[in-house]
Order: sequence, then structure tokens, then C-alpha cells
Amino acid sequence: MSLRPSILIVFTAIPLLFAAPAAKPAPCRATAPLASWNDGTAKKALVDYVAKVTTKGSPDYVPPAERIAVFDNDGTLWTEQPLYFQIAFAFHQVGVLAPRHPEWQTTEPYASILRGDIKAALDGGESIINEIVTVTHTGMTTGEFAAHVQAWLDTARHPRFNRPYTECVYQPMLEVLRYLRDHGFKTFIVSGGTADFIRVFAERVYGIPPEQVIGATFATRYEPRPGGNGGPAIVITPRLGHDNDKAGKPVGIHAQIGRPPLLAFGNSDGDYQMLEYTTGTPGRPRLGFIVRHTDADREYAYDRGSPIGALDKALDHAASKNWILIDMKTDWKTVHPEP
Amino acid sequence: MSLRPSILIVFTAIPLLFAAPAAKPAPCRATAPLASWNDGTAKKALVDYVAKVTTKGSPDYVPPAERIAVFDNDGTLWTEQPLYFQIAFAFHQVGVLAPRHPEWQTTEPYASILRGDIKAALDGGESIINEIVTVTHTGMTTGEFAAHVQAWLDTARHPRFNRPYTECVYQPMLEVLRYLRDHGFKTFIVSGGTADFIRVFAERVYGIPPEQVIGATFATRYEPRPGGNGGPAIVITPRLGHDNDKAGKPVGIHAQIGRPPLLAFGNSDGDYQMLEYTTGTPGRPRLGFIVRHTDADREYAYDRGSPIGALDKALDHAASKNWILIDMKTDWKTVHPEP
Repeated sequence: MSLRPSILIVFTAIPLLFAAPAAKPAPCRATAPLASWNDGTAKKALVDYVAKVTTKGSPDYVPPAERIAVFDNDGTLWTEQPLYFQIAFAFHQVGVLAPRHPEWQTTEPYASILRGDIKAALDGGESIINEIVTVTHTGMTTGEFAAHVQAWLDTARHPRFNRPYTECVYQPMLEVLRYLRDHGFKTFIVSGGTADFIRVFAERVYGIPPEQVIGATFATRYEPRPGGNGGPAIVITPRLGHDNDKAGKPVGIHAQIGRPPLLAFGNSDGDYQMLEYTTGTPGRPRLGFIVRHTDADREYAYDRGSPIGALDKALDHAASKNWILIDMKTDWKTVHPEP
Repeated sequence: MSLRPSILIVFTAIPLLFAAPAAKPAPCRATAPLASWNDGTAKKALVDYVAKVTTKGSPDYVPPAERIAVFDNDGTLWTEQPLYFQIAFAFHQVGVLAPRHPEWQTTEPYASILRGDIKAALDGGESIINEIVTVTHTGMTTGEFAAHVQAWLDTARHPRFNRPYTECVYQPMLEVLRYLRDHGFKTFIVSGGTADFIRVFAERVYGIPPEQVIGATFATRYEPRPGGNGGPAIVITPRLGHDNDKAGKPVGIHAQIGRPPLLAFGNSDGDYQMLEYTTGTPGRPRLGFIVRHTDADREYAYDRGSPIGALDKALDHAASKNWILIDMKTDWKTVHPEP
């Protein structure tokens, strides 16, 4: 996803706004490495690559410090349909924050959202999404924002899978994260979503600590708050800081990691430049993977021209750039973790 | 240091511009933990603190994932006199880049710098420093910039200590970095200097990988360069990105680490907010340390009102905030590594 006003979302399912409380078990993980992967091109490419760069004495050996793997989040580590989960959170938050904004009852797009009529709310055009994200993600401390995200994660359920959003992660990708870490890789998320949102659950769900989450940002400012009992605060302002989508992904990778990754995993054209930057940098063997959503039965099937997660250019260039396609339907034994 | 035009530098020693080649041994490190520290308040505070937060079952135990320690660089991990080393590099680079800028021979401040007359160059005012940093640090790829820094590090020598700048690091602080890592801490640099500069040597000299260096930034942009044999590039633009000094330090810490540190080490008022943010955040025991430059014989002696590394407000508040003062003269057996 992106924070720029280029998001066009077709709404097909809206009942995710005011969701019922949910149990919150952590996703279970298979213990055998890559147990949820069928034998095939993708699994073989990954296993062969890891063996090549981690075998001491091999001409392709890469020391652990350089073993960096980056992962897009939406559509690569967890489901992104019927709309980006962070946008679902944003719409939900309009209801949560409404008591502080009595004017929303009579102002669009808020009045429509509060009535549950998202379609009408979006009649205002693409920029509505950005307005709603900004209003619900800023003007508070990072601690307050994280508490809002956690409260939503604790109660909201995916409209189709009827389970917490954090259980709509991909079991095979959890296994890739673990497999790479077991081979000395540092795993990073590089997402168009905001870092402050993803950091709330990335450590528990993915085993990825906050300092390895790279995302979009709103500019923040420091407030000492010497009298407050909560201590000094980082306040999130409404000004866009970094847009971590498309060409913003290599920029974010350089800013936060400072060297090009060995491995990149994405699923959409938003990941094109991250894949290109990773696999195009000389000096080390590098590899790119694209998760293809080919499974309407177990998850979703979409690629070219999809309003969410469009995969056109990256698919056109995958063969010439030797990017490995992961076919959800044939490569994955399981999609989401067993309940 | 800061990239904003608030730097006022008094030049006392200039012969560091066109330096002779130097040998480049890595700084030697003592093997016993904290071997270069005399027994005293500072060493005891550090050892007691680390024992407290790493002893399982202790009420103050902190799991490894939260063990974050942040270090200012200039004046905290290496010497910052007679002027910030990165500024010395910038002046040196004017000479290196001059062949591409024939107009500099007749344009100030460049003409004066090229004649070796830094004092005349700075007659133009404080903003001259920023202009020179911008001109010498931007308009090239991150790879090109790193190569320039490396070439300078390989040849330049500190004017007083007559050794490579990377040997003007503090032996006792190298031991603190190692001691903390041996106890499960992640060590980060949080500097007013630029991340792209520090990352060139931080891994070799401090054992700190690029992804754990937080610094000032110029905005960058991604260039695919499909025809170039160097691969895709990150180009550094002249636009200031993040100013990582004073209140910018907690902002940079949140942006890159995503949670408050347990330990912060600084030496000047530029570190005040980093110390305040660290030690003022509730929930865990936290501690701040200030390196005091008290040793004119072995290094330098300065604090209040110093044009470089001024320490006023942080010194005034150290006692009330329980920040531990490190007295270079009495706490350190050695300052720089043995040659």
C-alpha cells in the first residue's frame, strides 16, 4: 500500500468495521523447515541459494553480516484483500475517535463512514483514503497510536476468514523467515504501510523486532513532557515523512539498512524497484521472489490490473530478471496457519 | 555535530587538509572486559546496571530484544577536536573535487580553502560549513561517496595525534560496546554526523553494522540505471533529510529503532534530549552516561561554552537526572588505543 493518493480501492465487503471480539492465539508454526512448501521451483531456488551463500569455502559464500533479506508485508507476508488491513483499521478508527469529533456526524466522508456506508464516503475520490489514514494515525503519541492498533488487533476479524488479522499471515512465509534466520540472515519488513502500525505486531507474529521494520512514516516531533507521568513522547504529526512504496523502497532500505539486501520478496508492482535494486546490485549472488495470488479457494486470485496488489510490470520482467515466482496454489500446502 | 547552520567552529589547527598516507592497523582491543577503566563510580554504575537487567529472575530483568544501547559518536566514541572529523573530511574533499569545479579557483569560500586559508573561507559566516558539507557530500551515489570517505580515512592523519582518525577512537568505549554486546545488547550509533559517513568505518572500527547507525541524512533518490555496470544506484541529493541532533535524536531513534533505549551515552548538549528520552521513559530501569573531556594532556579539556561539544545544560541537569559522569582523566587508564 502507499500513503500517496494513488490508492484506488474497490469495496466489495464492508462488514469488517465494527467487529466482534476474538480469541488471540499466536499463529502456530511447523517445526520442520519449510514444511508447508511443496517441492517445486520456488522451494528449490530458495534452498539452493541459501546453501550456496552459507557454505564456507564456497566462492559464493557471504559472511553473516551481509545476509539481509527484505520482505514486503501486504500480500507477501499476510493477506491484503479485500482491502489492506491497515485501511480497515483506519475506517474502524473513525468510529473509535468519533466521540472526540462531534462535527464528524455531519461532515463527509466521516458521516458516511459512521453510518457504515463506505461506498458513499469514497465518492469524494481517491484522496479520501489518505485523509482518513492521516486523521486516524496522527495527532497523538506513538504510544497512544500503538495502543489503538493493539486494541483493534485484539478484537477485529477478517470478514472472510473470520479470524484475527494477525492469523491471516502466510504459514509458508513464516517458515521462510525462520529458515533464513536459522541460516544467519537478518529479516526486514519493507512495507508501504506505516512502520508504527506494523511494529505493533511484527515481533510477536513474524519474529521481526521493531528496528527491522521499514515502512512509510509521518514526521514526528519530540516532546519532553517533564510533568507527564508517561515520560517524554514522540508525537506523530500529519505531515508525510517517507513514502515507502515503489522507488521509495530502495530509498528506505538504504536509509535504514545502509547496504543492498541479498534476498527480496514481494508480490506487486509496488515491490518492483525493491526487487530490481536487490537483484541488480553486483558483488554478491542475489535473488528475488514474487508471491503470486493464484488461489481463489484458499485465499484470492488476482494480479494484472487488480485495484489492490496489481502485478503487471514485475510479472512482465520476472523471467528476464530471473525473479522466482511463488505460485500460492501449487507451491503452498497451507496458506494461513492452522487454527 | 549538526547539519543545521548553528555550527560555529573556531579553527586553531589547519594542517590536516592535505595529509600524508598512513598505515591502517585496526585499533587493538584489550581482552579483559572494561580493562581500560579504573574502578570508580562510572564503571561500577555500568557493571551494576548490566548485572541488574540481565540476571534472570531479577525484578529488573529485561529480555534481550529490548536491550538497546545508543551512543553519540563525536566526542563520545572518538575525539571531536580540533574540529569534527567529518568537517575535516569536507574541507579535504574541496581539494579532491576541485578539478571538476574550475570555477572554485576564483569563488569564495572555495578559493580560500584551496589556498589552505580556512580562516578566510569562514569569514563568510556559519553557513559556509553547511555549504561545504553539502557540496562535498551530495550530487553523487552512495557508493561514490563511501569510496571518497574510505580514501580519506586511508590517508588522513589527526593533526595532533599524527595517526589515522579511526585510531582516535576511545579504547574504553570500544570496551563498553563489546561488554554490552557480550551481555545481549544491540549497540547503535546516534550521531549528528551523517549516517553515510559513519557507516564507512563503523563496522570495522566499532563492530556496529550499517543498520545500527542512525545519523543525519540528505534526501536520496533511487536510479535504476539499467545500462550501468555498477547496478542500480541511490543518489544523494543536496536536500537535508533528517537533522539528527538535539531533539532530532529521539526522533531518529524512534524512526529507526522503534522503541526507547535502555542506555544512552553522550558528551554534549546535542545529546541532552537523547539522554532525557532514554532515562525519562518509564517501564524499565534505564541509565544515561556523559563522557567529560577533562584531560588536556592525553586528549582535550573542554565543556561549558566550547565551540565544539559544548556541555552546559546536560551538566547542569546531570545530578538531578542521575546521569553518570565519566571523567576521562580519572576513569580511563587509556584514552586512544595503544599504537
